[in-house]
Amino acid sequence: MERLSSRDNPRVKHLHALAGSARDRRKHGETVLDGAHLIEAALQAGMPLKSVFVSETGLATAEIATLVDELPSATSLTQLTDPVFAHVSPVDSPSGVLALIDVPAQTAAPTGTTSVIVLDAVQDPGNLGTILRTAAAAGIRTAWLTPGCAQAWSPRVLRAGMGAHFKLELNEQVDALTSLASFPGRVLATGLSAGARPLYALDLAGSIAWLFGAEGQGVSPALQRRADQIVTIPMAEGVESLNVGAAAAVCLFEQMRQREFARASDN
Amino acid sequence: MERLSSRDNPRVKHLHALAGSARDRRKHGETVLDGAHLIEAALQAGMPLKSVFVSETGLATAEIATLVDELPSATSLTQLTDPVFAHVSPVDSPSGVLALIDVPAQTAAPTGTTSVIVLDAVQDPGNLGTILRTAAAAGIRTAWLTPGCAQAWSPRVLRAGMGAHFKLELNEQVDALTSLASFPGRVLATGLSAGARPLYALDLAGSIAWLFGAEGQGVSPALQRRADQIVTIPMAEGVESLNVGAAAAVCLFEQMRQREFARASDN
Repeated sequence: MERLSSRDNPRVKHLHALAGSARDRRKHGETVLDGAHLIEAALQAGMPLKSVFVSETGLATAEIATLVDELPSATSLTQLTDPVFAHVSPVDSPSGVLALIDVPAQTAAPTGTTSVIVLDAVQDPGNLGTILRTAAAAGIRTAWLTPGCAQAWSPRVLRAGMGAHFKLELNEQVDALTSLASFPGRVLATGLSAGARPLYALDLAGSIAWLFGAEGQGVSPALQRRADQIVTIPMAEGVESLNVGAAAAVCLFEQMRQREFARASDN
Repeated sequence: MERLSSRDNPRVKHLHALAGSARDRRKHGETVLDGAHLIEAALQAGMPLKSVFVSETGLATAEIATLVDELPSATSLTQLTDPVFAHVSPVDSPSGVLALIDVPAQTAAPTGTTSVIVLDAVQDPGNLGTILRTAAAAGIRTAWLTPGCAQAWSPRVLRAGMGAHFKLELNEQVDALTSLASFPGRVLATGLSAGARPLYALDLAGSIAWLFGAEGQGVSPALQRRADQIVTIPMAEGVESLNVGAAAAVCLFEQMRQREFARASDN
């Protein structure tokens, strides 16, 4: 196994740039998966790893040694000294293993036939990753992200997503109004407005495009107008709103409950 | 209005210490509320503000000027120059207004008669604050935090809580097993184990103590054994788990739905 011990090595510099810079990730169409869990999720999803990097300390752990043993035989594997690994690691506590991947190509004109989530300007990487994770868990297969969202394939969003990136068809820089024009189902947005109905009073069968917006602002007015129905999540008196990740969890799992568990419609 | 322009002023030093150090907050029994929204929530809850600090730029905004006008007349109000305000601010983008408060005293032996949430070693401040916010929105009134949790009254948890701290009876450093011994309702924990039942198959009427654990580890084994029922949140195939904040949102709002909206029991 090749061993790199200098920060000046071109491959080390490239990894460091990808881990820390959205611009570099965009320019090269590549990103970095950090940690055994995420790399295993990528392998299970059949995603090719361009190269894998382990730290000396990482290789001594059972989890990473097992992962290395299970890599497809053609995978390029490189050892980094601990200081060099810490230098390229996107997190403060280096996990010990990184993989370089191509960011998957996305469909030019995203369409959805089953339910989709549309995330409008969700800028916080942790929130964005958590919502993708929740959506995948609730059986959603497609996510459209408007240009104001954080970069979906950044290390921080990947970490919060915990593998959801490999279970979703993920489209970034989506013009949501255009894509919704050909969406065959209903469009629902959370919010407060005249005509809003409580989540639990709605029949959530069939395809739904769920719109969730940035913390604070919510969904943009133009998108909000496109919604067929504004949905309120009933809350205790004196409470105004939920974190966008919590709101998404409540809505998407209510749809899951109605689909899988409701013996009779509440409507 | 007094105006402070030096970082060496003792009051400025005290604010800076409270904003940045868990130890100082514990030592003085005080914390700092950052931003107009949080301060308004405290005022609405009848919480006394020991003193309020505004930046020059902050005072020029309509939101903060209005807040200052509405303060009880006896409130100590001090202006800080912008550089001094930025120095004491707990966030990167200073909000322009801070309030110093005493951390509310907590009951020595916490008891609960309605539903409570028990958070076991939830260390991430954002997760902790988000769960408190979700719990308050779902009508929960009591939260017990085990010693491994982040400090509930830290600026980061307060920010994510968005005012939930003033709607909950919040107990920190709780010995959960002891407190649960006198809890009259059922104890439910999320997890996977023999005998676990899907959330949506359970009747959630009556008092429930909901146990939620740290990301990754979950609830400690001793607490898990105390649960009357282990609950699984049904998920799409191939997905193992949810973020603890999302899991709490799904459980607490299912309880809310059953309480407020279910026309007939699903059981």
